[in-house]
Order: sequence, then structure tokens, then C-alpha cells
Amino acid sequence: MGNERKWTQLWLKYDRRQKEYDADLGRVNVSGFGEDTVEKKVLESALKEWKRGFEGYTGKSVTEDTAAEEAGLRILKDASVPAEGYVIEVTDPSHVVVKASEAKGVLYGIFALLRAMGLEQELSEAAGSFSPSNPLRMLNHWDNMSGDIERGYSGNSFFFKDGEILVGDRTRDYARFISSVGINAIVINNVNVKQQATWLITDRYFDKVSELSRILEEYGVKLFLSLNYAACMEIGGLDSADPMDPKVIAWWKERMKEVFARIPNLGGFLVKADSEGRPGPFTYGRTQADGANMLADIVKEYDALIIWRCFVYNCQQDWRDLKTDRARAGYDNFKPMDGDYHENVILQIKNGPMDFQIREPVSPLLGGLTKTNQMLEVQIAQEYTGHQIDVCYLIPMFKEVLDFKTYCAPENDTVADVVSGRAFGNKNAGMAAVCNTGDDENWTGNDLAAANLYGFGRLAFDMELTSEAIAEEWAGLTFENKSEVKKTVVTILLPSRKVYEKYTSPLGIGWMVRPHDHYGCSVDGYEYDRWGTYHRADHLGIGVDRSHNGTGYALQYHQPNADMYDDPETCPEELLLFFHHVSYDKVLKSGKTLIQHIYDSHFEGYDEAVALRDQWKSLEGQIENRCYENVAERFERQLYNAREWKDQVNSYFFRKSGIPDEKNREIY
Amino acid sequence: MGNERKWTQLWLKYDRRQKEYDADLGRVNVSGFGEDTVEKKVLESALKEWKRGFEGYTGKSVTEDTAAEEAGLRILKDASVPAEGYVIEVTDPSHVVVKASEAKGVLYGIFALLRAMGLEQELSEAAGSFSPSNPLRMLNHWDNMSGDIERGYSGNSFFFKDGEILVGDRTRDYARFISSVGINAIVINNVNVKQQATWLITDRYFDKVSELSRILEEYGVKLFLSLNYAACMEIGGLDSADPMDPKVIAWWKERMKEVFARIPNLGGFLVKADSEGRPGPFTYGRTQADGANMLADIVKEYDALIIWRCFVYNCQQDWRDLKTDRARAGYDNFKPMDGDYHENVILQIKNGPMDFQIREPVSPLLGGLTKTNQMLEVQIAQEYTGHQIDVCYLIPMFKEVLDFKTYCAPENDTVADVVSGRAFGNKNAGMAAVCNTGDDENWTGNDLAAANLYGFGRLAFDMELTSEAIAEEWAGLTFENKSEVKKTVVTILLPSRKVYEKYTSPLGIGWMVRPHDHYGCSVDGYEYDRWGTYHRADHLGIGVDRSHNGTGYALQYHQPNADMYDDPETCPEELLLFFHHVSYDKVLKSGKTLIQHIYDSHFEGYDEAVALRDQWKSLEGQIENRCYENVAERFERQLYNAREWKDQVNSYFFRKSGIPDEKNREIY
Repeated sequence: MGNERKWTQLWLKYDRRQKEYDADLGRVNVSGFGEDTVEKKVLESALKEWKRGFEGYTGKSVTEDTAAEEAGLRILKDASVPAEGYVIEVTDPSHVVVKASEAKGVLYGIFALLRAMGLEQELSEAAGSFSPSNPLRMLNHWDNMSGDIERGYSGNSFFFKDGEILVGDRTRDYARFISSVGINAIVINNVNVKQQATWLITDRYFDKVSELSRILEEYGVKLFLSLNYAACMEIGGLDSADPMDPKVIAWWKERMKEVFARIPNLGGFLVKADSEGRPGPFTYGRTQADGANMLADIVKEYDALIIWRCFVYNCQQDWRDLKTDRARAGYDNFKPMDGDYHENVILQIKNGPMDFQIREPVSPLLGGLTKTNQMLEVQIAQEYTGHQIDVCYLIPMFKEVLDFKTYCAPENDTVADVVSGRAFGNKNAGMAAVCNTGDDENWTGNDLAAANLYGFGRLAFDMELTSEAIAEEWAGLTFENKSEVKKTVVTILLPSRKVYEKYTSPLGIGWMVRPHDHYGCSVDGYEYDRWGTYHRADHLGIGVDRSHNGTGYALQYHQPNADMYDDPETCPEELLLFFHHVSYDKVLKSGKTLIQHIYDSHFEGYDEAVALRDQWKSLEGQIENRCYENVAERFERQLYNAREWKDQVNSYFFRKSGIPDEKNREIY
Repeated sequence: MGNERKWTQLWLKYDRRQKEYDADLGRVNVSGFGEDTVEKKVLESALKEWKRGFEGYTGKSVTEDTAAEEAGLRILKDASVPAEGYVIEVTDPSHVVVKASEAKGVLYGIFALLRAMGLEQELSEAAGSFSPSNPLRMLNHWDNMSGDIERGYSGNSFFFKDGEILVGDRTRDYARFISSVGINAIVINNVNVKQQATWLITDRYFDKVSELSRILEEYGVKLFLSLNYAACMEIGGLDSADPMDPKVIAWWKERMKEVFARIPNLGGFLVKADSEGRPGPFTYGRTQADGANMLADIVKEYDALIIWRCFVYNCQQDWRDLKTDRARAGYDNFKPMDGDYHENVILQIKNGPMDFQIREPVSPLLGGLTKTNQMLEVQIAQEYTGHQIDVCYLIPMFKEVLDFKTYCAPENDTVADVVSGRAFGNKNAGMAAVCNTGDDENWTGNDLAAANLYGFGRLAFDMELTSEAIAEEWAGLTFENKSEVKKTVVTILLPSRKVYEKYTSPLGIGWMVRPHDHYGCSVDGYEYDRWGTYHRADHLGIGVDRSHNGTGYALQYHQPNADMYDDPETCPEELLLFFHHVSYDKVLKSGKTLIQHIYDSHFEGYDEAVALRDQWKSLEGQIENRCYENVAERFERQLYNAREWKDQVNSYFFRKSGIPDEKNREIY
């Protein structure tokens, strides 16, 4: 990877701000950290970042190795600070102390100081003791070694091209960005591991993978790889991948020995098995636990993890079959083995039971499992939420998920409690996001989509942060912190998920997207297909009965959630069609009929999208033109998309129900 | 192209038959043909074929150059025989004379004799005077130079691979096959001319194109190329393709001079302009006639033709727009210039106004134009008719089209009259088929699909042949002529188009196919899209009003057709939904309501497909196993497809109308 392409610096632009900071802070003293090479490298990253940021924001210079008594910024080792945590003490504007028990904490502390400076705050606002909410704060890249990205909307991969691994300045910048928001692990290759990617665990790629891993290590980021469960057959030449087969176990042992000898900073592996055509233990009559534990036992001696995805369902369903329910599959497949998974296995569970729709209930596996390490998987790649063409700030959705009370325990029972490990005392736990980056100049296709990358990291580090606070931070750091610009951007971001929801599929039913690419409306696109994704609309009503009368999915939740979802009268209305088949003439809490709600929300959603676009237009001339044009162009495509959704959904239901819009608006 | 792959000999297997023919017919005398090299080559092809065929069918040997008085087969030049025609005289079983005015007639005569032998007929049954119904009998290959085939269902191209031209034994066999059924022209490259294919008219490819063309020439087949209308820009570097621009004209003149100097046996060009994103004269405010005539004037001195496709319509339609009607587009775009096209321009018109659906009315352009050379375009590539997975013998459809009375003249007014040139005395006219071949071992994916290739050629040569006669010929030649096998195959072929129609979209409405690939059911797949392909179903009824109350399309026909289509009471029922929006409760001539007709025909169509499959199964062990398995496997896929169509269409309309099936069969 050369420097032929330019890329932006996202929220680390460090461009000169109005607010002045004391020049003394440019004099830095570090003490107490030992001779460990990795620690030194991480400290070096922190100091380089301080130099870059402080000089950028203030125009004043930084000198390291100042004597302790003359330093404005003192960095001290303090073993009492929790792992990955940091303490910032601000005596006065010219004296700041950062304490940490390891270099990574220093790095996070420095980024916290720079964040405060970018937001033109007093440094005392950054003071306090901080440590991450989640042990693992992870990004999953679905990058293929060919260079394309599955569900990528920001160009091609910056990790891979034509079967080779790219390492360079862009890798380092990426490590800086994600480290600055607290990400501590990434998976660089697609969970669908095919072709060359299967060979990442062989000598063919060790050198380059190591080089990449070393850069990540300097920023406190562990490297993970997605593993092909059938690698022992595809590259090992075995005739089986049975996790009980001694030959299979021996092959993996040998392989892992070499892998961990050759790749530094390797945290473990992510595995998608028995899912959507991927091989797995089911082929051999074994359980998911058998498969995960086999690998976990082998990598245990390297302190490594096996992160096992729970996205296992029948993707060859007959649409005529009303009994099978894809929503049930995760719980049905994984709950029976709760307690069987070994300590260094983590089950990675998508936020909802289906697949990253704009509105789903929380997966009943989250907190449904009580004796198993769990990790929450969300998707900031906007597969079903507008392809980074439509603006959709997802942090409010993630907050809803984290705040959901699972009733898995008498207290500390929210999803946040479960995935942070608080609920059951797990050490191996956390949050992962399917990433939204690519080699586009602005990294995320739509400049505004970077708010999801920033926001996911910040939220995973500190689950108490509000959506609004995160949006304000990101906007302030990205857009020079002028108050009217920041305010406008935040005003666009905050409602954007609701707006997207309004003009797309109604009340939790999901889907209705164009098959394959998942952008744009096709109400029946998946209705007669094999993916288990149905709305069951007829001339009288719509929705899937997942109550005890139907598929029984609602009963997978702990009480009182099960009863709440089971009864259409207590089911939260935004999920009504997910859980119940409802007549078009049913009157909702708003006093509107269901059909009128569908019409109204679609007209409103489109109008609100127009309003978001208009707000963006007010920024012309006030922000960098490249960014303005990038988002403005996407807003035009969003409006086209929103209009199609509105008119297609409304026409579909009008044609099907024959019930006219009360307000006589145009429906086709 | 090497010989690494095997391929079948289709209907030219020439395998030993029961019926004996006199050994004297192996003694051949040729007289009267001159020294012209091309004529000699064609004669040589005829003699080689006789040797191959006669020896194969009879086991007896062939000697050429027998003295006239001792010859059993005499081949004579007779200038009174019409061009491309032949006369066969059979004095007794050991004396046959073939007369023709040109070698191509001899070739056709020899193939006719071999056909009779393959069918175990007396040769006297082949006696008579024959000449082709249509001047041009053409195949259009949609082969890309990369090697893939647009809408190809039989493997990859045998003309192109990785940007290069393939010439070899397979080319020659293909020339034999198509010559044997009377094809006299082919276009080897896709009408969507892109990338390397634009360069086919440059020195880069002249040598290989010439080599290929010489082989075709030996079998009386003219080579045509598809032309990129913007070639003068893409390879000529001009900034315009305006047909009135002297620079553009000069470029084409120069290019054509070289092309015709370098490529032998070149008949001219096929052009898709201003269609589905292809460039054309509309870009410059010129008419289609301006574009076609410019090129035609330039190639006139080489006796070449410009075949100009009429597939011009707005493919960016708004589905909300009820006024624009894609069906109208061909007539609206081409009729106003009737009479303006020069003599060596032929307009190539698809059989229907839409795009090769299983049921469409005949295009009103056919016979609507009265002062313009016209050619009928049909599609034997089964794009919308089952992808050569589902059996669909298309000759009955083509017969319906040819027999359609256009009322363009007091007599000789059928489509057959128009495209043969009889109606208006055109010399440049004929029939073209989008071809269904590829490099699969059996050439056509499904062995039974070869009946369409065979049948198209035979029908284009002799439009009086019945669908049944053609099916019997093909089945007899392909399957060793055992009477029960032939009968079973014919019994499968003849109803297959009706069966396909029954289980797919009802009463002429068309579409309802999966977008992009066009296989399988998706009732709303194109309903809210930009292609002008709508069914307009709501909870009360379905169909497009193309009467005078609607888009007015019906009025594009000559009377009395216009009135017939305009009135739902006289409109042929199989086209009812193409022309009218009809209530589900409308009672059809059968006494059934429309909705009941939809249900019944879909249940019947599926059952009939099962019956076809069962008939095929009865052939196991009686025919070559490769062929049996090939078709048997496809029949299973056809049944899967038919079941999906049946259930999806029925469920769609039941869910939309709420009207139950009178017979209470299972609808989902």
C-alpha cells in the first residue's frame, strides 16, 4: 500500500482550535514504566499522538524527556489503576498527570486529553478515573482477500488486495483511529472464510500478518482472525473436520503451535460454523460446543480465545412452512448447551434474533444463557440500514439494546450487564461491531457514517455515555467544533434512525428489502424465499404470530418479558408485527388504525428525510467542501430511496387491503 | 479451441438405421459447377456430408467422381432452380438427382436426403422442388468476448474465450448443424457490444474473424457482426457519433473499407442503438433512420446489410406513471419514419411488443410498417421460458406469430407474408432467433432444447411446416427413430409451452419473474421497478388497460385487430390481462371467474409438468443414458420451479383478493 491515495484523518484532524492551552503541557515526563518492548512501543505511540495532537490544536511545541519537576504533563505508572484504565489529575491548567498500570491506559488517557482539547474544554473536564465497561471492544471486518468487502459500502479493503496483505501508513492511521475510541481487538478477515483466506494460518502469509499485527499492537489492539472450520480438510488434506476425531485435533494442535509461534499479538479466532453454507460440527453429529471447545482447548495455552458466532439457522426454509421460525433458531441451537462451553470460548450473539434489521427485539440468547461467556454483535456496516447512503446514526439503537432488561438475574440484568460480564462475573465478554470502513478517502463512504464507528468504540468503552453526548463529541471533533455546525450535525444524526425506520418496514416486521444487496424496497422480495424472512401480509392483515399460538418464540424470554411480548396488548407497539399477526383495522395506542399508521409513518418518514437533507444544505460553505458534497450527494440518493420506500410500501398495502388513506394523499 | 472437450452431434449423429438404402447411392457424380473457389468449397462440404451421412446410416461406402451413367446420386447445376433452392428427383431407389443453381442448394439438398434417411423414409418422400421461405434465416448469438453468454444457459461461448476468438473443429460442427436446417447467417457477438467486442472491426481481430468466417462460408452461412454505434468514439477517438457529422461518416467509411477488405463472407452488421443504455442517434437529436441509413449507405458498395433492432424504449420508467406504456414504444419510435429507411436496412422486430414473454400479442410494428424491410426476431434462448431447465418447445409460439393476420394488405398479410417479403415485395427480409447454444457437451444445456434450434431453422426455411412435423423430424433424427421413443418425445414437446404458460404468469400479463436472471417466480419482482413491466394487481383485479381508455396501445394495430383487442369481450382470452384491467370475479368464456382460472391453471400446469416428467421417465434404458440423465435431472428442477410458481402465484392472489379456491386446494 503506497501513499498514492489520500485519506482523511476523521476525528483526529487536530486542526488549530480557538481555545488556548498552557504551553507547559508540551513538556512531558514519563516515569515508572519498565523495559518491556511492547509496553515501550505503546508508550511511544501515546507520546507521538500527544505531540501530533497538542501541536496541531495549539500550535505550541512538545518536548519529551523533560525533568519531572518541570513537566506540564506527567505520565506515571500506578499499579493500582485497573487494566486498560487511566486516571487523569489536573492540578491547574499547566499541570496534568496521567496514571495507568499499563501503557495502553496511558494511550487512552492521552486520547482523552486530546478529545477534551478538540472539544475546547477545560482539561479539568477530562479529569477522573476511567476504565472500560467491556473487556473486549472489537471490530469485525468482513474483508475478503480479493480486496472486496462483504456488505462493504466504502470502497475496497485496506487490509487485502488481490490475495495479498496490505501494510502501510493507512494501517497505522487506522490503528490510531480505533485506539483513540478504545477498540482493543479487530478481526481483519471476513467470517465467511474462503479461498486464500483459509491460508492465513499458514506460512504463506505469516510475515505480512505479523507486520500488520505489530502495528496494531503498538496501539493496544489485538489481532484476531476468522477461521475456516474446515481448514483441516481444505488445507490439511484430512477427510473430516469432526471435532472428536484425533486426527483433526492433532492437525489443529500442530497448526496452532506454528501460528502462535509466528504471529505476535494474536488474540484468537472468530468462527462462523454451520451457518449459511459454512461447514461446522453439525456435519459430524456434534454440537456447537464440541466444535468450539475443541479449538478453545488447543489455543488455551496461548491465552487465546475462540469467539463462536451464534448465527446458526435453517437457510433453506420452505416459505409455506408456518411452524419453523428463524427467530427461534439461535436460542434453540445454543441454549441447551449453556454451561458446556469452556472458559476461553465466547459466544457472539447478534443484537436481534434475525439479522440487523432497523427494528428487532433483543435476542433472547442475551441473558438467556446464564453460564456462558457472551458477546454482543452489532453491525455498523449499514447492510439493512441504508448502505451508508442513507444517514442512520445507530448508537440510539445500540443503547436500547444495552439497556434492555433481560430479567436473567435479580439485578444487573440488562444486556449491558450481561455482555460486560457484570451479570455473571465473566472475564471474557464484550461487544463487537461488523465494521463500516473501506479504502474510500473518507473511510466510511458517507462522512456521517463515521459517527457510528466513533460511537461504537466510545460506547463499548463507556456504556454510560448517551447517544447525544457521543454525537456531540464526534461532531465537535470532526467539524471544527463551531457550535452551529455541531448543533446541526447532531440534529441530523439523532433522529436519523427513527426516520429511516419510518420510511422502511413498519413496526418491527423487518425485511421488505431488495434481495441480495439489501438496499431499497421490495415488499415481497423475501416473502416467498428460503431465508425465513416473512411478513405474511394478506388482504386483512400483516405480521408473524410468534406468540404461544404461533411459533412460540415469545416464550424464549425470561418472565415478565415473555408475557409482555406474547400478548398483543402489552407488546411494545414498535415490535407489534414482529410478534403478532394484526388486522389492518386494529386501533393502535395513537388512536390510528394499523393501516393508517403505515401510511402516516411513511409520509412522515419521507418528509423528515427531506428535512434532514435541508438541514445539511444549511451547512454549505461552513464546512470543508469535500465533506459537504459527499454528504449532499448521498442525501439526494437517500431521498430517492425514501420516496421509493414510501410509495412502494403504501401502494403495496393500499392495493392489498383496499383501505384508502384517511388524508387522501397520493398512493399509487 | 482444442479437442479436449467432447460434444454431441445433435441431429447429425448418422448412426446406423434399420432401413436399407441402395448401395448405388454411394456412387456420386457432380457436373456443371464452375471453378469459383467458394462454390467449390461449399460443394466439397456437401459431398463430405453425404459421405459421412450415407456411410453412417447404411454402413455402405461412398465414392465420388463416378461417371455420370454409373452414378446413383447425380448432382447437377441447373440455373433455373431459384437461389438457395434445390430439386430432388428420384427415378428409382438407386437413382437420385439433386439439381441446384448454386452449391448452397446442393448442400441443402444433400441434408434433405440425409434427413429422409435418418427418418427411415423412402427417398422419394424427399423428392420435389424446394426453396427457402425467407431470404435471411439468421441466428443471433449474444456471446461476449470474455466467453460468457448474455442469457446463455448452455455453458460458455464456443466463439470467444478471454477476449480471443476460438476457431476449430467445434466451429465446423456448428456450421454443419445450422446449415443442415437452412440457417444462412449468424451474428457471433452480443448485441450489447462492449469492451473488446468493439474492436472486432479492427486489425486486432481480423485474422481470426476471417478464419472463422471462411468456415461458415463453406457451409453457406454469412457472417454478421454486432456493431457498437459509438465505436467511432470509443476506438476512433472522435468526440461524437452524430450520424450527420462528416467526421463520423468519414471514420466509418475508412473503417468499413478495411473491414470488408480483410473479412471475407461478411454479410453486414446488427445494431442495437438507443436501447437499454446503448448509445445511438437519439443522443444527437437524430432519428433511428438517420443512424441506420448512414451506416447502410457506407456498406452498400460491399453488398452488405444494416440490421437495426427496434427494441427501443424508456428503461427508466417511473412505475407510478400509468400513461407511459413500454408496449407502445416500438411503434411510436419506428412507425413515423416508415419509408425513410434505405434499401439495405432491415428493421429487426421482436415478436411481441415487450420482451419474449411466454405470451404476448404480436408486435404492431410487424405489418404496421408497410414501406420498410422487416425481420422477425424470436428468442430460442429460454430467457423467460425456463432457462433450458424447463422444457418449452417454442415452435408452436412462432407458428402463432407467423400465422397472425396483420391486415396490412388485402391479402398476403400474415406476419409470415411480411417477414418473408411476400407482402410488400421486399428482398431483404427474414427471421432471426436469439440463439440457445453454448459449449456444453450437448450444445443447448437441456437436450430437449435442441428441438428449438432445429425447429427454428427448419421453420425459417419452410414456414409451412407444422410444429408437430418439426418435432417428429427432430425426435426421429436425434433418438434413433424408434417409434415409441419418438412418440413419447413428441408428446412431451408439443404441449410444453402451454404447460409452462399455465404455471407461470396468467393470461398474457407476463413478467412476474425474478429480477435480473428472469428464472423463477417473483410476482411483484418488476412491479415497482423502472422497466415498464407491470401487472397492476390490487385487491379487486389485475391487468394493464391498453385500450382506448388506457394507454391506447390496442389502437396501434390495423383494423379489425385494433377493435378486437380494444374490447375486453372480443379480446382473445389468453391476452386478456395484457390489454385490460379485469376484476377477479369476471366470468370467462369457460364459465370460471378470473381468479378461479388463475388457481385452476396453476394447479393444472404443475400437474401437467409432473406428467411430462413421468413420460420422460418411461424412456429410461431406451435412449442413451447421458441424454436420459441430462433431461431427467432438469425435469426435477422444472418441477421445483413449477411448484414454486404455482404456490407463489396462487398464494399471492389469494392473499390479495381474499377469494378462496372453489375446490379448497392448498393455497398458502
